[in-house]
Amino acid sequence: MGRWAPGAQGRLEEAAMELFEERGFENTTVADIAERAGLTKRTFFRYFPDKREVLFSGTEPLKGKFVEAIVAASADTAPLDAIALGLDAMADLFTTIGDRPRKRQAIIGANPELQERELVKMIAFAAAGAEALRDRGVAEPAASLAAEAGIAVLRIAFEQWVTGPKGQDMKKLLHDSLAELKAVAA
Amino acid sequence: MGRWAPGAQGRLEEAAMELFEERGFENTTVADIAERAGLTKRTFFRYFPDKREVLFSGTEPLKGKFVEAIVAASADTAPLDAIALGLDAMADLFTTIGDRPRKRQAIIGANPELQERELVKMIAFAAAGAEALRDRGVAEPAASLAAEAGIAVLRIAFEQWVTGPKGQDMKKLLHDSLAELKAVAA
Repeated sequence: MGRWAPGAQGRLEEAAMELFEERGFENTTVADIAERAGLTKRTFFRYFPDKREVLFSGTEPLKGKFVEAIVAASADTAPLDAIALGLDAMADLFTTIGDRPRKRQAIIGANPELQERELVKMIAFAAAGAEALRDRGVAEPAASLAAEAGIAVLRIAFEQWVTGPKGQDMKKLLHDSLAELKAVAA
Repeated sequence: MGRWAPGAQGRLEEAAMELFEERGFENTTVADIAERAGLTKRTFFRYFPDKREVLFSGTEPLKGKFVEAIVAASADTAPLDAIALGLDAMADLFTTIGDRPRKRQAIIGANPELQERELVKMIAFAAAGAEALRDRGVAEPAASLAAEAGIAVLRIAFEQWVTGPKGQDMKKLLHDSLAELKAVAA
């Protein structure tokens, strides 16, 4: 096998999810994950700093889509609407990754340390959204408030998507959640 | 000195803040804090599980005030307005604790682990606020959205209070931040 095993990252992710489900996150080691994937620990560490980060490998691509869509919104788009376009772009990615978010959520929900990590990642999304709004000329504190409110909308919609019946339309949940926020703030 | 040294908690908090400012959080030990306060490590651990928690001892009283005011709001108070009353009650506490929040913020701002901890505490505020709203009969997701939007308002106002000129009116900052949120969501 070459130094960069083809598909190694995906195999490691799949192996980790299987093991986290079977034994729990705490009872799984990096050696276990590498063995299940038919790879070495050394290969594991080429892709991930630790076993926890396997669960968060999707965060950066999602954040990229989010920021990209905010920046690309037409100049007359209101701050919260630009954030909503960012959330829609993320929803498009979600629909392509099958059942993984649901399994992932069950693993994270069972472990307080992982829940903390998830919260911190969510706050990083808000910070990135606020920065993208400032780049569009939105002043503070409007930029941070719009971004943080948008992340609250995302959290609610995501929780419904991941805990409710399968096959729900993530974009519809996001739009409903945003409408609810607007009603609450009216 | 008696088993429960009078004022021991306050002395430990003061000693910890002094040392965190002088040497940095990382370079201060529990033994240092106890020594500076003229107390034993054993006494320290009667009040705090670790040195980090010294910085978060004010969180529970604040959360208590927050929840109490939400629950006490008149029956016809809208969800976000009930949250705003909770924030006002917290502001009343802030104005009684002098320069400590400002010093505390400088210490937390210098340490990513402490920043994470602060975020997690903020999210716990949102969860407590949402629960208080549900007790008032507010349905989900309105309860969570109002509470999380309220915490975004608090974060913005608090940052302005703690980084801006001394003697600012925390309630006014909160009200301005809330008005800004409403404008953003309109």
